[in-house]
Amino acid sequence: MTTQQLIDQIRIKKSFLTVGLDVDLNKIPKHLLDLEDPIFEFNKAIIDATHDLAVSYKPNTAFYEAYGIKGWLSLQKTINYINENYPDIFTIADAKRGDIGNTSSMYAKAFFEDLNFDSVTVAPYMGKDSVEPFLAFENKHTIMLALTSNEGAFDFQTLNVGGKELYKHVLETSKTWKNSENLMYVVGATKAEYFTEIRKIVPDSFLLVPGVGAQGGSLSEVCKYGMNANVGLLINSSRAIIYASNGTDFAEKAREEALKMQQEMAAILNDIKPN
Amino acid sequence: MTTQQLIDQIRIKKSFLTVGLDVDLNKIPKHLLDLEDPIFEFNKAIIDATHDLAVSYKPNTAFYEAYGIKGWLSLQKTINYINENYPDIFTIADAKRGDIGNTSSMYAKAFFEDLNFDSVTVAPYMGKDSVEPFLAFENKHTIMLALTSNEGAFDFQTLNVGGKELYKHVLETSKTWKNSENLMYVVGATKAEYFTEIRKIVPDSFLLVPGVGAQGGSLSEVCKYGMNANVGLLINSSRAIIYASNGTDFAEKAREEALKMQQEMAAILNDIKPN
Repeated sequence: MTTQQLIDQIRIKKSFLTVGLDVDLNKIPKHLLDLEDPIFEFNKAIIDATHDLAVSYKPNTAFYEAYGIKGWLSLQKTINYINENYPDIFTIADAKRGDIGNTSSMYAKAFFEDLNFDSVTVAPYMGKDSVEPFLAFENKHTIMLALTSNEGAFDFQTLNVGGKELYKHVLETSKTWKNSENLMYVVGATKAEYFTEIRKIVPDSFLLVPGVGAQGGSLSEVCKYGMNANVGLLINSSRAIIYASNGTDFAEKAREEALKMQQEMAAILNDIKPN
Repeated sequence: MTTQQLIDQIRIKKSFLTVGLDVDLNKIPKHLLDLEDPIFEFNKAIIDATHDLAVSYKPNTAFYEAYGIKGWLSLQKTINYINENYPDIFTIADAKRGDIGNTSSMYAKAFFEDLNFDSVTVAPYMGKDSVEPFLAFENKHTIMLALTSNEGAFDFQTLNVGGKELYKHVLETSKTWKNSENLMYVVGATKAEYFTEIRKIVPDSFLLVPGVGAQGGSLSEVCKYGMNANVGLLINSSRAIIYASNGTDFAEKAREEALKMQQEMAAILNDIKPN
């Protein structure tokens, strides 16, 4: 999917919602556990119930790998289901990968070719040659960690490097990499005040924003400081939507939560009347 | 496996060699491609031919994920084969994972429980709460990236943070984390001169050292500056061993290369007569 197609979808749906498919067998409705592939059935129901309200789904690979082969199969079925039934959805493999050059190429092949995701999240610590192999794929997007939403973000990401926080160096340096137009960034919603500074460095890039809801971030604050003329934000919500109920009405309740988010987003988009 | 058991194995085998199982279908002998699971058959032959010369095997997960379900199955069969046949081998899942707390727990479950590896590599960028979930597993080891062997290591890892390189902050900070005795670190062999400084910060920890051979690092230099009283080093070699030949003699040639490394290591261990 091209960036323009993503922007178009945001305009059409009046939504920049990403639903995080972080599926834990201990948290999904008990009645699904008797089915052959409970994780896939859960995802399928959530996706069917929310696809018109979300522009994106983001399975976190950890939740699939934890169940071994069976989990990887659930992941494959989930991405195939989205690609076949909802081709306008922007898909994110939240994998946070990164390795030396030839190895990162294998990861890129895994997520962009074998699984056919539109994008994958990567970690910046190993630098340019660990990320550029992902950037080489046309119409695929590499979403690099910049400032994350967890407590540990303050261990290294905000260290002062020559008068500037490390995450700003990460943002600035990444702009010099080959095919850097294929980069997006992860920026946690719990740090809304940072968005102004971040937008000075990457005014045009899409930012994937976790941490709204369960982790305490505010949607309106993030939009106030982080939105650009093309919206430029993908707001992730996982638990608040997918675990809205653990009864047989889970998909319906997930839709209600997604609808609340989408309506808030539609109101914001209406207010700011972007170009 | 406990650290002491690893040290014992190093003494018994007079080897601190890790064989990297980075298996690319384009590089393995053609005659294996007709078999049902060429990657597993390749690994099995390499392991059978080298298990008395190496103390450790390190499959890099990227090379398995690139082949989807089939690849994940090859990884599972490989780790099971090692655990069943060579229980004294220290196994490393080179996965470079890291995510927010509850998600890192899922990765830890994937590699420590589902696949039953002794250790996994992790990335430090997300800080304490992204690594501690791995450290909670008893007799399992978490190998954190400190200073990697690639060019991109100089993009961020060596940035000056208050008069000290970032990777030193990473090392120092990690020592304050809960169960930090379960940490080991990745330090690239291409930067032997850094080992003296690193040993000042983590004198007792095991260091996993890629970059000897194909990437140009010197074994004797690394040992000179990096070895401690318990050896404290695991030297990884991947391509130089596993791709020593791409004919039907590939396992035999792999053994020859592993033997050269082991003999060099035995000589070094003999020379330095550690405690």
